[in-house]
Amino acid sequence: MAASEFDLIARYFTRPTPSAVVGVGDDAAVLAPTPGHELLVSTDMLVEGTHFLPGTDPENLGWKALAVNVSDIAAMGGQPRWATLALALPAVDEPWLAAFATGFFACAEAYGVELIGGDTTRGPLNLSVTILGEAPTGQALRRDGAKPGDDIWVSGQPGRAAQGLAWLQGRSELPEPSRSECIAALERPQPQLALGQALRGIASACIDVSDGLLADLGHILERSQVAAALQIAVLPAPTCGSEYFLAGGDDYELVFTAPRDKRATIDALGCVVSRIGIIESGTPGAPVVRDAQGNDITPHRRGYDHFG
Amino acid sequence: MAASEFDLIARYFTRPTPSAVVGVGDDAAVLAPTPGHELLVSTDMLVEGTHFLPGTDPENLGWKALAVNVSDIAAMGGQPRWATLALALPAVDEPWLAAFATGFFACAEAYGVELIGGDTTRGPLNLSVTILGEAPTGQALRRDGAKPGDDIWVSGQPGRAAQGLAWLQGRSELPEPSRSECIAALERPQPQLALGQALRGIASACIDVSDGLLADLGHILERSQVAAALQIAVLPAPTCGSEYFLAGGDDYELVFTAPRDKRATIDALGCVVSRIGIIESGTPGAPVVRDAQGNDITPHRRGYDHFG
Repeated sequence: MAASEFDLIARYFTRPTPSAVVGVGDDAAVLAPTPGHELLVSTDMLVEGTHFLPGTDPENLGWKALAVNVSDIAAMGGQPRWATLALALPAVDEPWLAAFATGFFACAEAYGVELIGGDTTRGPLNLSVTILGEAPTGQALRRDGAKPGDDIWVSGQPGRAAQGLAWLQGRSELPEPSRSECIAALERPQPQLALGQALRGIASACIDVSDGLLADLGHILERSQVAAALQIAVLPAPTCGSEYFLAGGDDYELVFTAPRDKRATIDALGCVVSRIGIIESGTPGAPVVRDAQGNDITPHRRGYDHFG
Repeated sequence: MAASEFDLIARYFTRPTPSAVVGVGDDAAVLAPTPGHELLVSTDMLVEGTHFLPGTDPENLGWKALAVNVSDIAAMGGQPRWATLALALPAVDEPWLAAFATGFFACAEAYGVELIGGDTTRGPLNLSVTILGEAPTGQALRRDGAKPGDDIWVSGQPGRAAQGLAWLQGRSELPEPSRSECIAALERPQPQLALGQALRGIASACIDVSDGLLADLGHILERSQVAAALQIAVLPAPTCGSEYFLAGGDDYELVFTAPRDKRATIDALGCVVSRIGIIESGTPGAPVVRDAQGNDITPHRRGYDHFG
């Protein structure tokens, strides 16, 4: 192993950072925040065996490591700007690093992110990304603004990533073309950045679906101190069952609430969104879910909790 | 294990964040940058067995995980403001978490940092901290400003942490009171924040000593495209040998360069600093080190490189 830690960082993770005053290579990056904006900061850590399977394609992993963070900025209605990457590797594996960097920078370019710092060290495989974004002052979407009477909306079709994982693990059938869509949702999630930004001034609360629709909606209910009732009959024809839709994580769609008088505005956005319920006054808790016939289809399992 | 991931985070890592618009508990923290300032961002990842010994006291580890990041902001002449903590734990160990949080927040309070986000997950023990600081626009200290003729300075006495580690590992003798000082330097490093800020407008380049004085000075030489000559005779009575002083890492003192006409200003700062050499024109590389008698005492080993 001839390459030093510093050479490795330089070779794979140093790209031009035109928006940074000082990028990679000093004790800290130096950045110029946009006047009139607030800074949005989020961190996610991905661990082999917990968040991704051993042997996961490194290019997909590079994409996903950044995408899950971009999704947090999307859920705030912000614009992602900069990221840092801390990477622990069991050994120097240059083809792995090259593929990982390819995926990471593909996502960075797709969403306008510059990698401005990080750390590389020896250890069990671990990826920690911190993302910095910006939103006009006072306009960031939060979890704590849902009000009784607000509609509950969701983008796309959560549950596809979980169904893709179930197929990969041999736990379920999944015919084409759904199979390819579900695997893509799992391996190359597409953060809903344009939707999140379009929802500024419209949504009363917003969160991304990382742990499962019910679990993440539960965070909105808890922070807003409200309850909810869901009816999933109005969904576009799902490729997967209601259990996956309600409890499957890792899709990075957005769940949001908005006053009833915003329905026409939201329909006019041109995004794939579905109205799936109503915010009610009451104690936050697991919402009751009914189908088109009014039957209770609340799943037993609400989502994925690493320590649960 | 009854406590969920979210409960754990809430219990140990949620403290008041009066300076944040939104702190822990949303998809991202929302922060208001200070007008007229640039943002400083740095990330460090600490892995058990690579950066700290298995069984390290968790309270000291909590302190150090944040202190090494505060030191990066100190080396930029900045003020640390906010941090995120991503933590992978092999199992839920509440006494360990409580002690870790005690050390982490002790450091946060000492240096004015608020923990505004993070992630907790299951995995081999890994701590990744991202720190955000601020410096008045255009005044951050960088590595690339050293000029031929500048003096080279160092704060305190690098090498004590490495000597403390050598004693803990049974590799060297270390009588009291030096032993206690060296162990404290290893376990509770004190970032040179006041010195870094005082050096704005004075130092031409600055870096903190994390990998060893020669290795870190080497980064200044590389980024500034200059050479250096060192003479360590002028040090205050060292408690450790020149090998530790020159190549021992983990002390988080500052190495900086400044024009000769700043000597009186620097002496008047009231900080413990030593003038140890001169920047010269030439190709960046390992500087020749001489003692008071002019003997070459350049050590074979320049510093610690995780992949070297």
